[in-house]
Amino acid sequence: MPQSFSIKPIGVVRKTDDFTRIEIFDEYTDGLLGLEGFSHILVLYWFDQNDTPGKRQTLQVHPRKDPSNPLTGVFATHSPRRPNLIALTRCKIVAITGHIIEIEDIDAIDDSPVIDIKCYIPSEDEAVRLPDWARMNRKDTH
Amino acid sequence: MPQSFSIKPIGVVRKTDDFTRIEIFDEYTDGLLGLEGFSHILVLYWFDQNDTPGKRQTLQVHPRKDPSNPLTGVFATHSPRRPNLIALTRCKIVAITGHIIEIEDIDAIDDSPVIDIKCYIPSEDEAVRLPDWARMNRKDTH
Repeated sequence: MPQSFSIKPIGVVRKTDDFTRIEIFDEYTDGLLGLEGFSHILVLYWFDQNDTPGKRQTLQVHPRKDPSNPLTGVFATHSPRRPNLIALTRCKIVAITGHIIEIEDIDAIDDSPVIDIKCYIPSEDEAVRLPDWARMNRKDTH
Repeated sequence: MPQSFSIKPIGVVRKTDDFTRIEIFDEYTDGLLGLEGFSHILVLYWFDQNDTPGKRQTLQVHPRKDPSNPLTGVFATHSPRRPNLIALTRCKIVAITGHIIEIEDIDAIDDSPVIDIKCYIPSEDEAVRLPDWARMNRKDTH
């Protein structure tokens, strides 16, 4: 298995007082065809503020930075500290115009590199079990 | 913005007639603490069979390789051909023993590099819109 894989930004998060959007770089705009059929997207972005060896070595955290939550492995969380700094979040589409996806909200900061967009298809209903810390404030997945 | 980011495998998919599992590499095992509280995980793996410039340049596909589905941008699908070869799938945990996560099933081939695991926390209910091709056979998300 190769030691590493290379990923490239395909776009960027833009957040201002006036709008929240994803700007896809021109060369990837053809990849948006048909996205308007969906109400929601999965956005994968890079936690670029944490791209330091120390933060990428973090393996356990208190979820949601709350010390009263039990120490938990990063793979049992959505913590922005993790070996590969991939963030995953669901966004509601407001409008798509050319290479711009206007979205309702995103838990990323302005300028975050976007590395993938996938359509959001809900899973078939199935019983799901969660620990207590994950039941509260589900919206804040990090 | 940097031109590229580096990701490293944190484990590997193992599928045999007897089991389906994710083997997390020893140095990342501490990241699994608390995962047993969840019934399901999100598994991010690398479509390593497609790691060629040609396949990474694919921007439009017929979803689910069905020519009767409309030509669609890869960002409106979960196609294994895309600029960054990140696969995302939900798996049901059967058991966790040390660095091994036994799972019920996964849509990855044996030996696929695993690049991240996140807990699965369902989204709050909200009306979701899908195009016709995405309504059928939801399980086969690719």
